[in-house]
Amino acid sequence: MRMVDLIQKKRNGKALTSEEIQFFVDGYTNGDIPDYQASALLMAIYFKGMTSEETAILTQAMVDSGETIDLSQIKGNIVDKHSTGGVGDKTTFIIGPLVASVGVPVAKMSGRGLGHTGGTLDKLEAIEGFNASLSKEQFIQNVNIYKLAVAGQTGNLAPADKKLYSLRDVTATVDSIPLIASSIMSKKLACGADNIVLDVKTGSGAFMKSLEESEALANEMAAIGKNLGKKIVAVISDMNQPLGYEVGNANEIKEAAEILKGKRVEDLRILSLEIASHMAVMAGAYSNYRRAYHELEKNLENGRAFLAFKSFIEAQGGNVERIENLHTLPNAKYHIEVKSDKNGYVSAIDAESIGLAAMLLGAGRATKEDEINHGVGITLKKKTGDKVTMDETICILHSDDETPEEAIKKAAGAFCFSNQPPSPAKVIHKVIT
Amino acid sequence: MRMVDLIQKKRNGKALTSEEIQFFVDGYTNGDIPDYQASALLMAIYFKGMTSEETAILTQAMVDSGETIDLSQIKGNIVDKHSTGGVGDKTTFIIGPLVASVGVPVAKMSGRGLGHTGGTLDKLEAIEGFNASLSKEQFIQNVNIYKLAVAGQTGNLAPADKKLYSLRDVTATVDSIPLIASSIMSKKLACGADNIVLDVKTGSGAFMKSLEESEALANEMAAIGKNLGKKIVAVISDMNQPLGYEVGNANEIKEAAEILKGKRVEDLRILSLEIASHMAVMAGAYSNYRRAYHELEKNLENGRAFLAFKSFIEAQGGNVERIENLHTLPNAKYHIEVKSDKNGYVSAIDAESIGLAAMLLGAGRATKEDEINHGVGITLKKKTGDKVTMDETICILHSDDETPEEAIKKAAGAFCFSNQPPSPAKVIHKVIT
Repeated sequence: MRMVDLIQKKRNGKALTSEEIQFFVDGYTNGDIPDYQASALLMAIYFKGMTSEETAILTQAMVDSGETIDLSQIKGNIVDKHSTGGVGDKTTFIIGPLVASVGVPVAKMSGRGLGHTGGTLDKLEAIEGFNASLSKEQFIQNVNIYKLAVAGQTGNLAPADKKLYSLRDVTATVDSIPLIASSIMSKKLACGADNIVLDVKTGSGAFMKSLEESEALANEMAAIGKNLGKKIVAVISDMNQPLGYEVGNANEIKEAAEILKGKRVEDLRILSLEIASHMAVMAGAYSNYRRAYHELEKNLENGRAFLAFKSFIEAQGGNVERIENLHTLPNAKYHIEVKSDKNGYVSAIDAESIGLAAMLLGAGRATKEDEINHGVGITLKKKTGDKVTMDETICILHSDDETPEEAIKKAAGAFCFSNQPPSPAKVIHKVIT
Repeated sequence: MRMVDLIQKKRNGKALTSEEIQFFVDGYTNGDIPDYQASALLMAIYFKGMTSEETAILTQAMVDSGETIDLSQIKGNIVDKHSTGGVGDKTTFIIGPLVASVGVPVAKMSGRGLGHTGGTLDKLEAIEGFNASLSKEQFIQNVNIYKLAVAGQTGNLAPADKKLYSLRDVTATVDSIPLIASSIMSKKLACGADNIVLDVKTGSGAFMKSLEESEALANEMAAIGKNLGKKIVAVISDMNQPLGYEVGNANEIKEAAEILKGKRVEDLRILSLEIASHMAVMAGAYSNYRRAYHELEKNLENGRAFLAFKSFIEAQGGNVERIENLHTLPNAKYHIEVKSDKNGYVSAIDAESIGLAAMLLGAGRATKEDEINHGVGITLKKKTGDKVTMDETICILHSDDETPEEAIKKAAGAFCFSNQPPSPAKVIHKVIT
């Protein structure tokens, strides 16, 4: 088999066989196939696509290229969730405890943040003492006892995906639906997940800007799952403004904890309950979605979800005092109010700009080497649809720098105004089961 | 400027600017831009094409990536010809002397053969003593005195093209019209040509199998010429059978010499006169094509063209006795007659198979390291349209091996037969000026 023939076959719009895809993934992982042939194939895939079957085979080949995590020692039906990445997305800290509170085990492997969206581990580490470096045994034990554990990814998971992703990044072959779908799914499947709820973001702050593209990505991932015998539900949720009011590390933990204590922040609450309900049904805890939603909503009100959150944090070394008294979480030195220069309504808040402003303050990483400042971040005072008058505060920047001019400019520029109230922002666009 | 942005721009179907193309060619030539980004761009070009302007800029950038040959010391308007490669194509040895015989200088830089088509230099070296390694000064002096010189390409000509061609070969990005056109033209322009007649082959033995593709390539090359201020005529000629009757090195020289002595081999004679006439008009020797054709035809009859051939060969050290007495050229040990197993008409002769059969006999190189055997080759006894009866000889293999079975099989398999006479084979399909 020659790689140049595979490239030509794909270039001519034909589907590659299982053997051919395996030959490529194996050869590329072990270095027999050079980058320049891989990038030519990736560009041909960008133009000619892949069938659902090819995409599933590629996903499985990337899973098989490295280690996989064996979660068979965990009791019960484990469910996982994955978000394609959004700004202010602290749903994991709400959904995890919520699902755990009804006895469904959640074993979550997470990464760190890069760019305009924050990482789950970075946010949790805003809680003093929290330790995400669990051994495999500790991780499984914690899930069995507390029904929830969050750990950093360890081991050589889907190395083919890592290598291919780095190559795609520098060859303008990132935005191909089958390549994105197989990349996400290979990482998830290598982590041992059998039941996954996917949160596919759509809108200005998401990787997929249009509903059409987001739907295509959701369908592709669902098809991979189906092809490989996994249960998948995909929720397409809105990212035309940040989720909730808080962006950063400590302040996202704070907002999540408030919701677990019953606070009503509509978009966050609705999305968290939606995803958690599908997870609970998938795991077999409830026979249907309506029932699950009802029961989970109760656990937000009665404090059980917050209890599950506290046990999980405590089990991983976190100081529970910090989440019981949220003002003891890390806090920035300065709180700079950004004012509106217009009268009108907020028509949109560009989530990417808010994310970048938070990154500039130190809440995220521009490069892998950057250190996170857990106390800084942004609090939105207005969201889409809110009325504003001139000089009213639209957001507050929590900063360790007295005049973070670039971040102020970025954050202020994220807000769009209109004279008429905009049509109400949707939280969930579609659910694909 | 970032290469990834250029790839993305082309991928999205936009035209690259002059600065961007220059950045790519310079960076790739000096190694700043890695192969994997170049191959991604090439694949994007394969799918999205290039405008005529982009193709011309790419050509010029590839010319500028290395040395160029300065022919300004040659008196008169120099013309060059280039063929896209065919089997049995010995027109250079006819056209060169023919054009020189009317006083138009021909300064030809040539390469060696690889694969199923032979190289100009290899064929000339079938003449004892012929030396293609001329210094720049000798080359120019010979053109000034004899109006014709043929030398091997020396110097670092269009290194960007060389590097890109090697990459295209292993990434399935060879067959892109703008990439083929710019590759051919960059080599020609680096050799100092201002007036070029292109012989674009079409048919089963050509790189471009269909007339449509050949026309597209011819138009693209003509557009490059126009964009860069060069005079170009493109002749689209037939390669659905080998040109003339002889394939090999010594026997192609033999057939060319016979035509220069007035022998009528229709396809070869017509194509040579066509190309030579355009060259003579371009150089200003005649005011129009009809006039040129008439005068050049006379020089085939009256021996002036053959005289020019002899002076050129002698000036480059060749033993003229070999072309005066053609039987003294190198000859193979065995002459194997291949017979027809059918009654009927020859409907086609696959030129590529004949070329490969000759290569198997030792007339060409399968790899760069192979040595050429000048005496071996193939003589066609029948051409398209000829009537054949069972057991009649269709071709003769000149071989140093008594039973070259593979070559016999290949050559015999090249012939197709029909019961009815086929429609007459065209020699010239189209001329683009």
